[in-house]
Amino acid sequence: MSIVVTRIHELADIKEELAARDWFMGTSGNLAIKVQGEPLQFLVTASGKDKRKKTNEDFLLVDQDGNSVGETNVKPSAETLLHCEIYGRSNAGCSLHVHTVANNVISEIYGDEGKVVFKGQELIKAFGRWEEDAEWEIPIIPNHADIPKLAAALAPFVEEDKGAVLIRNHGITAWGKNAFEAKKVLEACEFLFQYELALLQAKANLQVIRQK
Amino acid sequence: MSIVVTRIHELADIKEELAARDWFMGTSGNLAIKVQGEPLQFLVTASGKDKRKKTNEDFLLVDQDGNSVGETNVKPSAETLLHCEIYGRSNAGCSLHVHTVANNVISEIYGDEGKVVFKGQELIKAFGRWEEDAEWEIPIIPNHADIPKLAAALAPFVEEDKGAVLIRNHGITAWGKNAFEAKKVLEACEFLFQYELALLQAKANLQVIRQK
Amino acid sequence: MSIVVTRIHELADIKEELAARDWFMGTSGNLAIKVQGEPLQFLVTASGKDKRKKTNEDFLLVDQDGNSVGETNVKPSAETLLHCEIYGRSNAGCSLHVHTVANNVISEIYGDEGKVVFKGQELIKAFGRWEEDAEWEIPIIPNHADIPKLAAALAPFVEEDKGAVLIRNHGITAWGKNAFEAKKVLEACEFLFQYELALLQAKANLQVIRQK
Amino acid sequence: MSIVVTRIHELADIKEELAARDWFMGTSGNLAIKVQGEPLQFLVTASGKDKRKKTNEDFLLVDQDGNSVGETNVKPSAETLLHCEIYGRSNAGCSLHVHTVANNVISEIYGDEGKVVFKGQELIKAFGRWEEDAEWEIPIIPNHADIPKLAAALAPFVEEDKGAVLIRNHGITAWGKNAFEAKKVLEACEFLFQYELALLQAKANLQVIRQK
Repeated sequence: MSIVVTRIHELADIKEELAARDWFMGTSGNLAIKVQGEPLQFLVTASGKDKRKKTNEDFLLVDQDGNSVGETNVKPSAETLLHCEIYGRSNAGCSLHVHTVANNVISEIYGDEGKVVFKGQELIKAFGRWEEDAEWEIPIIPNHADIPKLAAALAPFVEEDKGAVLIRNHGITAWGKNAFEAKKVLEACEFLFQYELALLQAKANLQVIRQK
Repeated sequence: MSIVVTRIHELADIKEELAARDWFMGTSGNLAIKVQGEPLQFLVTASGKDKRKKTNEDFLLVDQDGNSVGETNVKPSAETLLHCEIYGRSNAGCSLHVHTVANNVISEIYGDEGKVVFKGQELIKAFGRWEEDAEWEIPIIPNHADIPKLAAALAPFVEEDKGAVLIRNHGITAWGKNAFEAKKVLEACEFLFQYELALLQAKANLQVIRQK
Repeated sequence: MSIVVTRIHELADIKEELAARDWFMGTSGNLAIKVQGEPLQFLVTASGKDKRKKTNEDFLLVDQDGNSVGETNVKPSAETLLHCEIYGRSNAGCSLHVHTVANNVISEIYGDEGKVVFKGQELIKAFGRWEEDAEWEIPIIPNHADIPKLAAALAPFVEEDKGAVLIRNHGITAWGKNAFEAKKVLEACEFLFQYELALLQAKANLQVIRQK
Repeated sequence: MSIVVTRIHELADIKEELAARDWFMGTSGNLAIKVQGEPLQFLVTASGKDKRKKTNEDFLLVDQDGNSVGETNVKPSAETLLHCEIYGRSNAGCSLHVHTVANNVISEIYGDEGKVVFKGQELIKAFGRWEEDAEWEIPIIPNHADIPKLAAALAPFVEEDKGAVLIRNHGITAWGKNAFEAKKVLEACEFLFQYELALLQAKANLQVIRQK
């Protein structure tokens, strides 16, 4: 099996799994996986498709500028440039962009601070931090409608290899050296976001009840 | 394959997918898809069925007044007139009506204002708005038990081609030029509603915690 | 196909569907379906089983006193007497008892009032009420550990054919003339409970935010 | 079928079911099942795998010290020592460790008290308590990064055969005499945690609304 076919299968597996969780509501989200580094070629999801469905045109091969390699009937995702940025500035092999309710709410309530910080959570180990009471921060960047401007805002955090960046009210972009690592980071982030919101709620509720 | 059979398959696919999300609790909800425009004929879900199950009588063909075309053992959904209104006053090819907890809560808390407005959310692009900080409003109409009266309240928003209207404590009706577009709008609305409720909660919780 | 086999299939279908929703956590819950009225015989789930799994001993046939008809390796659910009460005092053909987080919370917060009342909700139509702004109340009875005592507390509401009764911190029991009707009532209740909790939350959050 | 193969199938079934609920986000969690008691041998999940996927190396056989029995390409879970503690100090036949949002939030908000107590909940019967208004407490221990230290903190509660222990911000460990019993306890705990959080929320919301 050629490397392209292998990568298509890997990306199709992730797409199916994340679609089953409803992480691509309203055709949002896009996924990419690197096929070769020199010159850069990666597979990216086609623009504006229902990711619950499987077709022969779910993905297309693009180059370092996000332009299609070879003929195709579909257009690359409008946000392909973000994936170019990631493969151009890091050793990432896979990058995933999804919208969930929890990641959008976290991006909004901590958006002014430019980051959300997690501490003492076991799931932080997914980011490769194993110390007791380790801290991990996920940057939050503004949601520029202009994609090159958005890509430029993402760039410094890719160079720091943060693994995940929230775009305010525009979901999360996570990456890793391969599909397994990228999905692990994405899941750990979602768990931490849901936890953070549920903890805020429990604390506020206990406070209201106790000060009755 | 005849156009009717194609449309039945499209509608059955959407029914299966939305049923798996539990968007038809207690036999609520109804779906329709246009088969031809002149004279109008569309498929609509049969009344009072468990939409988790697949049968040979899940849909029936009706005309512009919502009357069955040809013989059938089933009755059209009690709310077929709403779909007539949509196909009669717009270029819609598919219309979907579902109840979710989030859409009913949003319809109640913003019901007196007659609308809910979303701004700066990436998912607004599902409505075809691509500007930075674009706004989108979804009208909320009263839940008249009299279906012709309800259809009349819906009519002006169909003519404006709003894409989605909330009926207070009675779910949402969304439409688009085809099944793909109608489902995209429906999913984007559900995401925005869940987001709005989760954001209200996070903001209120933070306020309680910070003013301790 | 004999009537017993038909009923086993109907009950197995419901069990599978409700299990997929995690409505039988920790082996809780039990289901029953009437096979014949004179003398009463009904199928009931075997005691203490994991309802996610399908086996040849998921159900057994019992008589009007809840005793097994014929030989079997399994015991009827400890709460079989509640189902006896339902078939003995109404025309029900199917009765379902499940625990969900929402039904237990509703049973606790409104337990002292002995009922929860819903008004103006479209889903009330599942109870056969079609007027505008119709009201529907679901009784809440105490959770007597003694099952005959619990059955006696349930009896008057079965005679009124309320369709559904909450047992405080012990789930809901819903019934209908057949499997379809019982499941419809059960789903409508769950939707209304989730709605009620989500509405309370949205209202409280808006109040906190607005009085800042 | 040998006992090892039988146990592999049992553990694979549980892994598949819990993975479908997203209880292993970010490769978190680990599962074990006893194969023989003298000398102790048990199967445990391999370290750092995506538990949504099925492979031939999902589990490996280890001894009383958590060392692999025979050759293998995979490493035992980093937390294998906790399972050693459980099989060494109780008659458990299966032990399950998972992270959920609800169990982590409960472990944090009641962490200082060292336990969470449930009373009058029907689901307590899953712990073998059948009296009316029975109480059940689940201990909460600190999340020591040092696994032998964590195992030592767990030990006294295994000797009391508590059935389940929360590790602060590090999920829950539940056990039982076999796979069925361990999963029953795990599900009952998750239900009780979700209930507790939802009840706190409903109570706080009612209080805010009523004191308006």
